[in-house]
Amino acid sequence: MYGAGDVCVETRPDPTILEPTDAIVRAVRACVCSSDLHPYRSMGRTDEGVPIGHELLGVVEEAGSAVTTVRPGDLVIAPFAWSDNTCDVCRDGFQTACPHGGFYGNPGDVGGQQAELARIPLADGSLVAVPDVDESSPLLPSLLTLSDVYLTGYHTAHMARVSPGQTVAVVGDGAVGLSAVLAARQMGAERIILMGRHEARTDLGREWGATDVVAERGAEGVQRVLDLTDGLGSHVVVEAVGHLPAYEQSYGVVRAGGVISRVGVPQYDDAPVGFASLFGRNITLTGGPDPVRAYLEDAIPQVLSGAIDPGRVFDKAVALDDIADGYAAMDRRESLKTIVTF
Amino acid sequence: MYGAGDVCVETRPDPTILEPTDAIVRAVRACVCSSDLHPYRSMGRTDEGVPIGHELLGVVEEAGSAVTTVRPGDLVIAPFAWSDNTCDVCRDGFQTACPHGGFYGNPGDVGGQQAELARIPLADGSLVAVPDVDESSPLLPSLLTLSDVYLTGYHTAHMARVSPGQTVAVVGDGAVGLSAVLAARQMGAERIILMGRHEARTDLGREWGATDVVAERGAEGVQRVLDLTDGLGSHVVVEAVGHLPAYEQSYGVVRAGGVISRVGVPQYDDAPVGFASLFGRNITLTGGPDPVRAYLEDAIPQVLSGAIDPGRVFDKAVALDDIADGYAAMDRRESLKTIVTF
Repeated sequence: MYGAGDVCVETRPDPTILEPTDAIVRAVRACVCSSDLHPYRSMGRTDEGVPIGHELLGVVEEAGSAVTTVRPGDLVIAPFAWSDNTCDVCRDGFQTACPHGGFYGNPGDVGGQQAELARIPLADGSLVAVPDVDESSPLLPSLLTLSDVYLTGYHTAHMARVSPGQTVAVVGDGAVGLSAVLAARQMGAERIILMGRHEARTDLGREWGATDVVAERGAEGVQRVLDLTDGLGSHVVVEAVGHLPAYEQSYGVVRAGGVISRVGVPQYDDAPVGFASLFGRNITLTGGPDPVRAYLEDAIPQVLSGAIDPGRVFDKAVALDDIADGYAAMDRRESLKTIVTF
Repeated sequence: MYGAGDVCVETRPDPTILEPTDAIVRAVRACVCSSDLHPYRSMGRTDEGVPIGHELLGVVEEAGSAVTTVRPGDLVIAPFAWSDNTCDVCRDGFQTACPHGGFYGNPGDVGGQQAELARIPLADGSLVAVPDVDESSPLLPSLLTLSDVYLTGYHTAHMARVSPGQTVAVVGDGAVGLSAVLAARQMGAERIILMGRHEARTDLGREWGATDVVAERGAEGVQRVLDLTDGLGSHVVVEAVGHLPAYEQSYGVVRAGGVISRVGVPQYDDAPVGFASLFGRNITLTGGPDPVRAYLEDAIPQVLSGAIDPGRVFDKAVALDDIADGYAAMDRRESLKTIVTF
């Protein structure tokens, strides 16, 4: 990506093993994340360009000498952040804050994953192999979502401690919001109110467990949710937009003692947290970058068994060479989420 | 209170039963809250004055015809907010947000509790009787703290879900911060770092379970806590000051995936909540007005058995007529907390 709206595919030198803990993974499927749209819409022009992409299902091509848990030929899921998975922070279950870990797609020696080959640092702490699935499986899209989008929806519901019988409101009908609907249903939420206005998306939300859809926004949307909840509001609100109006909508619809769980990087720094917004009604604010690695081992069998089908978020497929079409379609909201084939 | 620095004692008409759910309580002990110091320092001049005070241990003088759980002669604790204790919000355990409840000491027909007599609305939902204790008991100060200060410390630790083995940092050595130390120790916190610089107070904190005291503030204080925690920070941070620098200190010392629990009304509305402060490391922000009523039944036996002695926060006693001396002493930090006798 060279700047806003400018994504192109270039041939760069193949990544190589730099540390004995590295692995080289050949991409089988990748995809475009809604978070990739932030720079796609606002990045300043650069001459060097930055590698981009951080969602990857692939096959191990080569493993460094210290790697013991995956080997060449394994189909693996690469979480959007790498981590050692052994330190205190990882053992707490917050691998995205691992002091030895990092994020793909930043300038530097670890490239983006919208690419044929990727170097994965700390492969033992990052990659998880998927057993008995080959590259022709129809489950590949759902497995790919475990690198980020589905488990990001899951994480936000997990941080909010969604429990059976609760009401969960999801602000935003993007792929992560819909994933949060699916995850909340898995956790036993009784009522799931999806706030969104794109019918194809909210229809998928209904299939995944949304019991109500609210198209209105702002004060009108808040009132609709209050009307649906006897004036009490929702035990949990998943804020899956990342902009301040969605945050404000969230504290408008959350029940006293409830939780706002944010997902996606907030595109603001300061926000209301005082008596009127959060404190006065004991509202908890939580959420952050999904520690995918903490959840992968439990989630893979759910996909393999068919218990969940999160790959349905993909409504467009492009070959890597055509990835700019995927960005453009997602930017215009013509595609919910675009998968990349190789 | 007629304005900043101007507290006086006046004879007003006795409160009377206005609703059949009311009770009239004669004060045995009351006290001055650190939150009373906010208007004491900043309130604009008024001609009418406002009644003040919201911490009360007293004896029921008269009960309305619909009151069934307390009767004249009972020694009762009056939480700092009244509530019906039957609605959905109360049953969730958030009685301070009860839609039928309210707070004492605001202008209106419910007065303050730094007074000889108080009208308690919704007496069944608000008051809890203390069995087998008379007005000469040495336990009166500790029982009084259950109307607010100790249980406010308890609530903040409870909302943060302090659990055995955790590290808890408490920012602020006021009466609520010290109460949070005591509560965190009751919940099994292994290490409790008290951030404060008033030696008499931090000494009480040590007696109550603080394992470390950090007198430094700001960046220096943050670094000290990180040094004490292998660079990881504290699982839970209790922010018991209410001003923005304490909030900023809190996210500086909290561990990835940890919780900041605020106590006392924040004296700011907007604060940093973006990637750098909360989101990037999955920090949870929680806390709010303590629903005292939710905890009273469990806390009273702890005081009666001597398991906790939260009344030690009182280091000055005044008769009601001298309450202005208590305010002044607390304002000058000569008194940690002043109890009022009748």
